[in-house]
Amino acid sequence: MTVRIKVVNPNTSAAMTRGIHGAALAVAAPGTTIESTSPAMGPASIESHYDEALSVPGVLAEVAEGERSGVDGYVLACFGDPGLDAARELAAGPVVGIAEAAMRTATYLGRTFTVVTTLARTRGRAWDLVERYGVTKFCAGVHDVDIPVLELDQDPDTLEKLTEACASALARDGADAVVLGCAGMADLCADLTKALGAPVVDGVRAATLQVQSLVAMALTTNKHGEYAAPLPKAYSGLLHPFTTSPG
Amino acid sequence: MTVRIKVVNPNTSAAMTRGIHGAALAVAAPGTTIESTSPAMGPASIESHYDEALSVPGVLAEVAEGERSGVDGYVLACFGDPGLDAARELAAGPVVGIAEAAMRTATYLGRTFTVVTTLARTRGRAWDLVERYGVTKFCAGVHDVDIPVLELDQDPDTLEKLTEACASALARDGADAVVLGCAGMADLCADLTKALGAPVVDGVRAATLQVQSLVAMALTTNKHGEYAAPLPKAYSGLLHPFTTSPG
Amino acid sequence: MTVRIKVVNPNTSAAMTRGIHGAALAVAAPGTTIESTSPAMGPASIESHYDEALSVPGVLAEVAEGERSGVDGYVLACFGDPGLDAARELAAGPVVGIAEAAMRTATYLGRTFTVVTTLARTRGRAWDLVERYGVTKFCAGVHDVDIPVLELDQDPDTLEKLTEACASALARDGADAVVLGCAGMADLCADLTKALGAPVVDGVRAATLQVQSLVAMALTTNKHGEYAAPLPKAYSGLLHPFTTSPG
Amino acid sequence: MTVRIKVVNPNTSAAMTRGIHGAALAVAAPGTTIESTSPAMGPASIESHYDEALSVPGVLAEVAEGERSGVDGYVLACFGDPGLDAARELAAGPVVGIAEAAMRTATYLGRTFTVVTTLARTRGRAWDLVERYGVTKFCAGVHDVDIPVLELDQDPDTLEKLTEACASALARDGADAVVLGCAGMADLCADLTKALGAPVVDGVRAATLQVQSLVAMALTTNKHGEYAAPLPKAYSGLLHPFTTSPG
Amino acid sequence: MTVRIKVVNPNTSAAMTRGIHGAALAVAAPGTTIESTSPAMGPASIESHYDEALSVPGVLAEVAEGERSGVDGYVLACFGDPGLDAARELAAGPVVGIAEAAMRTATYLGRTFTVVTTLARTRGRAWDLVERYGVTKFCAGVHDVDIPVLELDQDPDTLEKLTEACASALARDGADAVVLGCAGMADLCADLTKALGAPVVDGVRAATLQVQSLVAMALTTNKHGEYAAPLPKAYSGLLHPFTTSPG
Amino acid sequence: MTVRIKVVNPNTSAAMTRGIHGAALAVAAPGTTIESTSPAMGPASIESHYDEALSVPGVLAEVAEGERSGVDGYVLACFGDPGLDAARELAAGPVVGIAEAAMRTATYLGRTFTVVTTLARTRGRAWDLVERYGVTKFCAGVHDVDIPVLELDQDPDTLEKLTEACASALARDGADAVVLGCAGMADLCADLTKALGAPVVDGVRAATLQVQSLVAMALTTNKHGEYAAPLPKAYSGLLHPFTTSPG
Repeated sequence: MTVRIKVVNPNTSAAMTRGIHGAALAVAAPGTTIESTSPAMGPASIESHYDEALSVPGVLAEVAEGERSGVDGYVLACFGDPGLDAARELAAGPVVGIAEAAMRTATYLGRTFTVVTTLARTRGRAWDLVERYGVTKFCAGVHDVDIPVLELDQDPDTLEKLTEACASALARDGADAVVLGCAGMADLCADLTKALGAPVVDGVRAATLQVQSLVAMALTTNKHGEYAAPLPKAYSGLLHPFTTSPG
Repeated sequence: MTVRIKVVNPNTSAAMTRGIHGAALAVAAPGTTIESTSPAMGPASIESHYDEALSVPGVLAEVAEGERSGVDGYVLACFGDPGLDAARELAAGPVVGIAEAAMRTATYLGRTFTVVTTLARTRGRAWDLVERYGVTKFCAGVHDVDIPVLELDQDPDTLEKLTEACASALARDGADAVVLGCAGMADLCADLTKALGAPVVDGVRAATLQVQSLVAMALTTNKHGEYAAPLPKAYSGLLHPFTTSPG
Repeated sequence: MTVRIKVVNPNTSAAMTRGIHGAALAVAAPGTTIESTSPAMGPASIESHYDEALSVPGVLAEVAEGERSGVDGYVLACFGDPGLDAARELAAGPVVGIAEAAMRTATYLGRTFTVVTTLARTRGRAWDLVERYGVTKFCAGVHDVDIPVLELDQDPDTLEKLTEACASALARDGADAVVLGCAGMADLCADLTKALGAPVVDGVRAATLQVQSLVAMALTTNKHGEYAAPLPKAYSGLLHPFTTSPG
Repeated sequence: MTVRIKVVNPNTSAAMTRGIHGAALAVAAPGTTIESTSPAMGPASIESHYDEALSVPGVLAEVAEGERSGVDGYVLACFGDPGLDAARELAAGPVVGIAEAAMRTATYLGRTFTVVTTLARTRGRAWDLVERYGVTKFCAGVHDVDIPVLELDQDPDTLEKLTEACASALARDGADAVVLGCAGMADLCADLTKALGAPVVDGVRAATLQVQSLVAMALTTNKHGEYAAPLPKAYSGLLHPFTTSPG
Repeated sequence: MTVRIKVVNPNTSAAMTRGIHGAALAVAAPGTTIESTSPAMGPASIESHYDEALSVPGVLAEVAEGERSGVDGYVLACFGDPGLDAARELAAGPVVGIAEAAMRTATYLGRTFTVVTTLARTRGRAWDLVERYGVTKFCAGVHDVDIPVLELDQDPDTLEKLTEACASALARDGADAVVLGCAGMADLCADLTKALGAPVVDGVRAATLQVQSLVAMALTTNKHGEYAAPLPKAYSGLLHPFTTSPG
Repeated sequence: MTVRIKVVNPNTSAAMTRGIHGAALAVAAPGTTIESTSPAMGPASIESHYDEALSVPGVLAEVAEGERSGVDGYVLACFGDPGLDAARELAAGPVVGIAEAAMRTATYLGRTFTVVTTLARTRGRAWDLVERYGVTKFCAGVHDVDIPVLELDQDPDTLEKLTEACASALARDGADAVVLGCAGMADLCADLTKALGAPVVDGVRAATLQVQSLVAMALTTNKHGEYAAPLPKAYSGLLHPFTTSPG
């Protein structure tokens, strides 16, 4: 059986999408196809509530398109899990955010984990998700490496800085594992693991495997209540083109 | 001193906006100006996570426009408080959602409150906000009247059905107050209060007064951290026109 | 319409009451009358659970007197909110404590707030109220300036010390706003705001506006259950004089 | 070694105090002396926040008097635990409320307990204490028998009604134990246990034993911080006579 | 790459182990080997805290044996997840309990899930695990079908009774998914899904896939703190034989 | 009336059992008999989840033996409270763990307590119990003295090191009391109290008094549900000998 997983990178950066694609591919089982994309509209990178809000319509357009082409499940590859609830309404198959998958995966690795994100201002969103996913007692801290998303793969010192930030977070929080707080860190996961001597969780890998597992169990969102397909209705203005599908 | 409050109705329905405008005006102090609008783009009504997600860009465009014209504070007049965090990044003055204002107001009226929304599928979002605003122990239940948003002012039996739903919610939950779970119920608040003999909180009034009070105290969002103005960056696709402002 | 708000300062200090009166007046809308008083019996200042307990009968006597004279709503102007539940049973109109109003107001200004009280021994009571009002996740810390209540307006270095304590609290907690933990700090609010560059919430102003808003919405305590008027009954001893009213 | 325990009944009813005295005596170890009293001032019975607030000065006067006469520890024999924090500041030895002792005792008897109080309006206070004492997950419900405090020993059907209320509470909540929500129920504890076939916890017994145990371990309130003796200060009005002691 | 997963059924029943083995095999990826066993010592079935406690030494012996033979990861196939922490100390690779995997998997399928266990007395343990795994807000209820573990595959009416119990649990709790509360229900999962029209989560499948995913990501328990190998020490009595390994 | 309390030391060390016995005896009331034992099988000391798991069968054998000989109640004298739920199923009388008794006792002594255990790796178990017993808001921290259990009475510097660890814990956490995190520290309690000038709670004393108090009130575990005697069933392997009793 072939399983088609669509990985949506809400940041509209092709280089970042390539890194994400590699991470997802690296863990996919034989028979699982990974299709990675980023939306035609939205911010180049997501570093604020505002950026995240404006990335959502593009993410939903990608999911709507995936539904038309028979995708089995979706990964939302931004640590804010933008549009997760709405995507679950649109999709027949499972939709998993990388923050939720990474955080839940980390609970299997010890008593607590610590999160390391890009910029300080994004830590609030991480705490909101910690609460949403019920992992408050497992999350010992949220820290940042102070590198913008799009510089992660430009700054020659990224690995060094990130290693230092993770080591410091582990020590300060007495945590057992690190959760990488940005999809753009996915391709550094192996190097970080080696340097830190502690488990490092990349949400892209974790979410890809979670979707694959849900499909293997034939499990998906319950579509008979809160997450039923959206009601058909009139939409004004620029958003129209891709909103005809749920009706 | 004149205070300008902009009330944004994320549902693109003119009739509903008129009702909301009346509720806000009814409680504004002398010297406070109310400007009620609904976005040029977005869903006609918000009854799902999907609708809510797609309403956010339009809401943010209204806030961006308000900033250009010197608005003092904003009310987000949909019970899901869509785009609240992003709007706080955009605006210099305070931004208050009607759900947060209504729920916090209700905590002054007794031990617990109960929420009555429109459709059953929207109750999940209300519970999310209950948790977000820290009112879990005050919220005794979330119920629905099973009337779509746009039929609230069409259905001749709305008042009767809503009275019954509220009375039943109060009794089942042993609650002290009702929180109306939709801006479209704002103009029924007085009638419901009379019929129920219990406090009924309309979020449009509560949020308008909250913004007015924050302005009176010269208090607004701390703009030096998580809620600083969004970083300038490239945006692709259809969303471009209104996203040039924060840069 | 005229609204009469009675501000009760549970500390029996006339100078402090004058400062509180000024803060309440500064934010009242046209048409709102502020009547500030302090009880005829009780401790000169409230700096322990014991002081607070002994201030309550005097506070309730003031509320009982206010009911006889047609007051519309009450502010309890001590950060322990002494006698709040009992006052809500006595009064027909709303009763708001300055701690609850300040803490809830602060939730609109960012992710977290920090509280700065007078003496270290009063921090426990502040934490109790944090829990009571459901703002646990918003309150990042409770600190003290180590100045007794009655010396706040005597010590020439109060503003300097308080500025330092607030700045240190903001930095240590990474908080977005300061909540002033004593009504005696009300008249320093503007100076502190200027010095700190962060929102500073004075509970006297916040509670006055909250009462005014509740009256504007015709909202008050639900009087048909837990907060119904106390049952008439015999009272022994010295407390008799003012306890005849609720019967 | 002789241990002197003072049991303070905040309700100024001699008959009720006699019943309480009997319950405390019934469990005291050899060598423990029980001294039961009720204050010279305060309400005849406590059935509201107002009653409770007005009972506190009398309770504190009894504790101040006990300190002068060398009492080893105190039981506050009203289910609202009125004045507990203030009494801990006044007393050198331990002070235990019957609600806290009963609720904590009940946690040893199974997964959950249910509380049965006198009047419906007192249930709120019980829930407040459940939260304060950290037993939220152990308390499956709070119910009432709808009998005023002073009629508990007058109404010939009290035992029957209370048995029924307890049985119904146990069944509805699936609880393992009953906590009696009023000191006036203390002398019915044995009969209720027999009738219900489930553990019934009387707070008077539980608190008396808890004080006795704390004294046996030489444990008492830490007096070097929040619970240090109140600072000496001026008190105005009627409360003066008994407030000279802490200075 | 071959992955060896050992599935330990703490109930010493060969028939039940066969059913569990089938469920694990059904979802394993190509290249994953499933080895299912039940311990040589322990209770025939686990239906109390006592049974569970006595199953743990046998479970640990199986894990110790697995370590000697190079197993990559373990599934603990009893809904009480007996010995989970201790097994994580013994094993180099990941150890996953079926309760934790099932509950966490269910959080991806909607807002809430409901658990259906075998006997009423086992519901308490399920609630303990709900709290331990941080899924309190996702778990809407725990119910039982009132069939002993070893009769699940004997009673001709098991499927019918279980369908009814699950349907009733879903309706009463308004839940989106069912979590099967016993490994002995694993082979009924498909039939139940069909009958209920809602997602049904079998922990054996969920845990097997979780171990497989962790191995694919090269993630395992952090072995440098709480979960380091147990310290070598003397063991008295009957337990000796298998306790030589960790030393 | 004579009360027989059996104190079970899950660590199979005779010297440690003697120290525990002395602590229990020191607080027992006239008429209470203390019988201290340690199991015939199990680890010499408990310093990991693995050790704790393997101590449980021996603990349960001691309880089963106690039931045959008419013991009135049990103390489990290891800070992990191993086998507590299972022991409650086996015993007719009350069973109290030293961690639960110590933590609950500490809540009477101030706002917060701090725990000092033996080795760092045991702190996780202490946090688990903090959550289980609902004392999260009372527990300000869990620390360790870094001395193995069996060296507590060998190391000549134990008292000095422990005093330092406790003083540092009190200061860092701002706590009011210390909870000793190992039964092996019981005989140092008086010396520590003197050195620290703060309340120090020894769980052996606290649990012994708690069992004595429960017996005095004729209170015990509700035996009609979750904690009913285990069902009789077949047990395989080495554990058989002592498992015939519950049947």
